Amino acid sequence: MAWQELPLIEAIARAIAGEAPGRLVVGSGDDAAVVRARPYAVTSIDAMVDGVHFRLGQASPADAGHRALAGALSDLAAMGADAGEAYVALGLPPAFPQDDALAVLDGILPLARETGTALAGGDVTRAPAMTIAVTVVGWADTEDDLVRRDGAADGDVVVVSGPLGASAAGLAILEGRAEGPRALVDAHLRPRPRLAEGRALARAGAHAMIDLSDGVATDALHVARRSGVRIEIDLEALPLAPGVEDVARQLGTTGAELAATGGEDYELLAAGPEGLPGSVVGRVKRGPAGIAFSGPQGETRLSGFEHRA
Amino acid sequence: MAWQELPLIEAIARAIAGEAPGRLVVGSGDDAAVVRARPYAVTSIDAMVDGVHFRLGQASPADAGHRALAGALSDLAAMGADAGEAYVALGLPPAFPQDDALAVLDGILPLARETGTALAGGDVTRAPAMTIAVTVVGWADTEDDLVRRDGAADGDVVVVSGPLGASAAGLAILEGRAEGPRALVDAHLRPRPRLAEGRALARAGAHAMIDLSDGVATDALHVARRSGVRIEIDLEALPLAPGVEDVARQLGTTGAELAATGGEDYELLAAGPEGLPGSVVGRVKRGPAGIAFSGPQGETRLSGFEHRA
Repeated sequence: MAWQELPLIEAIARAIAGEAPGRLVVGSGDDAAVVRARPYAVTSIDAMVDGVHFRLGQASPADAGHRALAGALSDLAAMGADAGEAYVALGLPPAFPQDDALAVLDGILPLARETGTALAGGDVTRAPAMTIAVTVVGWADTEDDLVRRDGAADGDVVVVSGPLGASAAGLAILEGRAEGPRALVDAHLRPRPRLAEGRALARAGAHAMIDLSDGVATDALHVARRSGVRIEIDLEALPLAPGVEDVARQLGTTGAELAATGGEDYELLAAGPEGLPGSVVGRVKRGPAGIAFSGPQGETRLSGFEHRA
Repeated sequence: MAWQELPLIEAIARAIAGEAPGRLVVGSGDDAAVVRARPYAVTSIDAMVDGVHFRLGQASPADAGHRALAGALSDLAAMGADAGEAYVALGLPPAFPQDDALAVLDGILPLARETGTALAGGDVTRAPAMTIAVTVVGWADTEDDLVRRDGAADGDVVVVSGPLGASAAGLAILEGRAEGPRALVDAHLRPRPRLAEGRALARAGAHAMIDLSDGVATDALHVARRSGVRIEIDLEALPLAPGVEDVARQLGTTGAELAATGGEDYELLAAGPEGLPGSVVGRVKRGPAGIAFSGPQGETRLSGFEHRA
């Protein structure tokens, strides 16, 4: 059965009604949601489109819902903010099955619950391809609790919050370009936003932070440029998820390169004083702004990096 | 020339950089926007898709941008909130001209400026049809400053904030189904969110409020159901925009019916004590929940209403 607006809106409304009533003053059924605010609102919007950011068939509708929310929440993690509310605009082709439309919520709601995010509003409309636009709002009590991209300073260590390369390896497996463990595919389809890690890095005094949505090479460059510093990454220090090295070999590359250039791991990269939680992968030096990778053969250029920057 | 992500993102970033720096602590170029909050956040998300909510050709890219922001801000107006920030996710087909993509901002920015809304974040992605998802955040200092849909009570007057039927008449002109003044077409393409009127109605003690996005018949029914009351609307009391009666005649209907069933006027409808600002169009009575229209021949059913409810 093709989707219908009313039952979908009602399903979203039921989901909203189930959320923390203390924070949410007005939920579904009104013109807008009303939320009790904390002093600083941290907001990001992120849209994912079938055929561009995911492919239905490879990814289930629930996977797509999960990933769209995870991608948006990852931006809050990268600021060190607490997750607050999510607002979801869902676009569906006319013949999209009703069960698949409802399944999007099955992907969104468990992750929302797990991260303390309230689904506080939504919108459903026709669209030529399945589209999920998610706006997330996070909160902080002081400006000092939040970490920008522009504070990296000479002498800082650079850390990442967890193993890398899993998402790119998982995508290769999903597309039949390599074989490997199911855990890598799951890492690609169901990334976890590192909210707790983001807050811990902020508390530990991180000077700059970003989430690894495009890969270390691209994202560290954003930090370097915004901070006006040179970031040196030791390719051999990049922590790899289990199985990444093997998948990389099948793809004719190395695990380190997959970790450095593969996107969507949604781990965090931070610069700051010694002792930051995470794996140390590099150092911040005085400018000119840019990044450099060092490997066993000294300084390295990464294939596939130039055109991503 | 087809659009490219980087120049578009840079244009959005320049627009963000131009916004009120006092409220916006972190603007473009970071993982998320950071805004100094007031005690209550009022949030709505609204997506508009080419071929569904507008048709490029009839509407310009700037019209589409304006309407998407106006539709979202209208939800804030209907709560009596002050406009705050807007976050825009723009989806564009690969061959979409760069100039047209930039023109979307030309539709968004003047309306943002006019309404005191800061464009605080954005996202650009490929999509099979032009898609504009807008999240708006408004603010209020107390819960009492905000008006829901569920407070209409026996004896309340029902008012609307301005003349009706203009958008439906304008669409008929745009589609060549009728002839009439350009002002009606403009009312359709460039609706104004009634933010000042919404705050005035809230201050005047409105018990319930909604914006007329679907038409009086549908939207008053939302208020009636949420409030558990019967709303009686006097068709002859509905204020008509100049030219609506004439366009209605060409369409084989009446101005009152166009005003009652035509959507997207984005005026406000409110229920509350005598003396509310606006045109009195009806009364609230004890339930059962529903609406009734009275006209010159007594109680009236509206053609085209049943299937919209």
